[in-house]
Amino acid sequence: MLSLKEIQDLVEKEVRDESINIVARRPENLYIPVHYILGLKSKKLRPALVLAGYNLFSDNVVKALPAALAIEVFHNFTLLHDDIMDNADLRRNQPTTHRKFGENAAILSGDVMSFLSFSYLLQCETPKLKELISLFTETAIQVCEGQQFDMDFESRIDVSAEEYLNMIRLKTAVLLGCSLKTGAIMADADDLTSAQLYEFGINLGLAFQLQDDLLDTFGDENTFGKKIGGDIFANKKTYLLIKALELATPQQKSELMFWLGHPEPERGQKIASVISVYNQLGIRKIVVGKITNYIALAEGIIQDTKVGQERKNTLQSLVETVSNRNY
Amino acid sequence: MLSLKEIQDLVEKEVRDESINIVARRPENLYIPVHYILGLKSKKLRPALVLAGYNLFSDNVVKALPAALAIEVFHNFTLLHDDIMDNADLRRNQPTTHRKFGENAAILSGDVMSFLSFSYLLQCETPKLKELISLFTETAIQVCEGQQFDMDFESRIDVSAEEYLNMIRLKTAVLLGCSLKTGAIMADADDLTSAQLYEFGINLGLAFQLQDDLLDTFGDENTFGKKIGGDIFANKKTYLLIKALELATPQQKSELMFWLGHPEPERGQKIASVISVYNQLGIRKIVVGKITNYIALAEGIIQDTKVGQERKNTLQSLVETVSNRNY
Repeated sequence: MLSLKEIQDLVEKEVRDESINIVARRPENLYIPVHYILGLKSKKLRPALVLAGYNLFSDNVVKALPAALAIEVFHNFTLLHDDIMDNADLRRNQPTTHRKFGENAAILSGDVMSFLSFSYLLQCETPKLKELISLFTETAIQVCEGQQFDMDFESRIDVSAEEYLNMIRLKTAVLLGCSLKTGAIMADADDLTSAQLYEFGINLGLAFQLQDDLLDTFGDENTFGKKIGGDIFANKKTYLLIKALELATPQQKSELMFWLGHPEPERGQKIASVISVYNQLGIRKIVVGKITNYIALAEGIIQDTKVGQERKNTLQSLVETVSNRNY
Repeated sequence: MLSLKEIQDLVEKEVRDESINIVARRPENLYIPVHYILGLKSKKLRPALVLAGYNLFSDNVVKALPAALAIEVFHNFTLLHDDIMDNADLRRNQPTTHRKFGENAAILSGDVMSFLSFSYLLQCETPKLKELISLFTETAIQVCEGQQFDMDFESRIDVSAEEYLNMIRLKTAVLLGCSLKTGAIMADADDLTSAQLYEFGINLGLAFQLQDDLLDTFGDENTFGKKIGGDIFANKKTYLLIKALELATPQQKSELMFWLGHPEPERGQKIASVISVYNQLGIRKIVVGKITNYIALAEGIIQDTKVGQERKNTLQSLVETVSNRNY
């Protein structure tokens, strides 16, 4: 039974080792960008979830490493393409892949990463390979759908809370659910427990994304690691903005609409004004309540699963990692 | 036993039907571009090869339709992304997807197509599903590698014939080999025959691509359907140019280098001048010889396979389709 830290170290080493194999492949212009993105410092939450899911049932976690690698490489493929679509300059405080190597490189290296993911899955030794690949494929399709909804929302102001939650479920949460369930499938867990772990991951993912939204507006810049207010400045349809538009008085609504429609707002002024409306409406408390709700659902699922209590500690640590982020 | 025409009609209908299912999915902005590219008129050579491969062993070709669909959708995914990378305006005489729907749409809709391909493969009823998905995954990786080599060659003038042939093997031929072998696997053919069909597809693919190169320079504009000389004008490192640079006298070589380096050449003059050097060197005959060679290899493999003679007719028709294109 490994601690979360031990799991993360194992994942870190596996990704680093495979990244060295990848960059030895030819043509090098295809694989150097893959090596680059995989080398950026990150939490490696998703592959850790694969191993944590596996480790609930079995100690031989190395058996689940190819599956963990598949999910990490897939996740990084989505980052390459999302960063092109979002026209982003920085990823993990470094230049995005398309800024560093050009857009064509980011498209094609992303593509090959998506197929490398399947090649790692195919290395998994399990009688349930079809189930594993089906789950992964379905999840990948959903992640694309989530990204499209997110882009669609940019040009809409009438996004409902329900639509938003569905979007982050697709864009973020299903991959966390898939990661845990992948670990469970590799460990040959029964179907009920696998389904429970998937739901645990969904709730964790929703909490995680809402937390991210909250930190972007109310976080501590030192802990959060980037400038506060980016979502507000970019008119992102976050849960905060959606709830604010839903609850606003006519006057508060026109204030929000003024800033949403302003062609050249002064950054600090726009952020402060929108936060002021958020504060009047108690948005922070509403979002914290929603997060607490998802965390409670996730914890309830942990309690319900037929897994030895001592095995559940890693999942509990993961929940705490999400719920203890500063805001 | 179906004729090539019957196979093509079956594939045409399957792609059309599935395209209607796809466009009913949400978010519609993700799936409308998929529907668009799948609706453009095309030969559907690759899915026809899947069914033809299957039909060598078994009559119930509908069983292989999901696999045929997987390969057609994958092929169209590569077209979406290649057209962005090549900055192409037209595909099959219609606006390319990124011109019609924007670059982000073409990236993300392409991505979802690559995953839809796997979902079709997963629908295949075969005890050899792992082999099927492994072949497909490996092929997809090779196609990305081929595209990268092709892009790398744009900025080089020292590409050897061997490098070029390896590039078109990866970019074009392996998918034809994969298509035929996929059909064979679905029909539970023995390993030797499956491998032979793969090699048949490789040789057919190499002949096909060289033929394409030849037609671009020496084709009949009416039959070929696009303007002659595009490759010459764009300095594409085709087999024709590579052999010409290899065989040229110092004077012919400087003529070629002059046109390759000219910043603003007059189109007609550049094409005529390069063709003139090609003619002096007998390039057309050399390329025809190479194509004939690959066709002969493909035909030799057909003869060697343990398949009833009457079943081989569709493959023979395919070879003739390639070798009878006008030049």
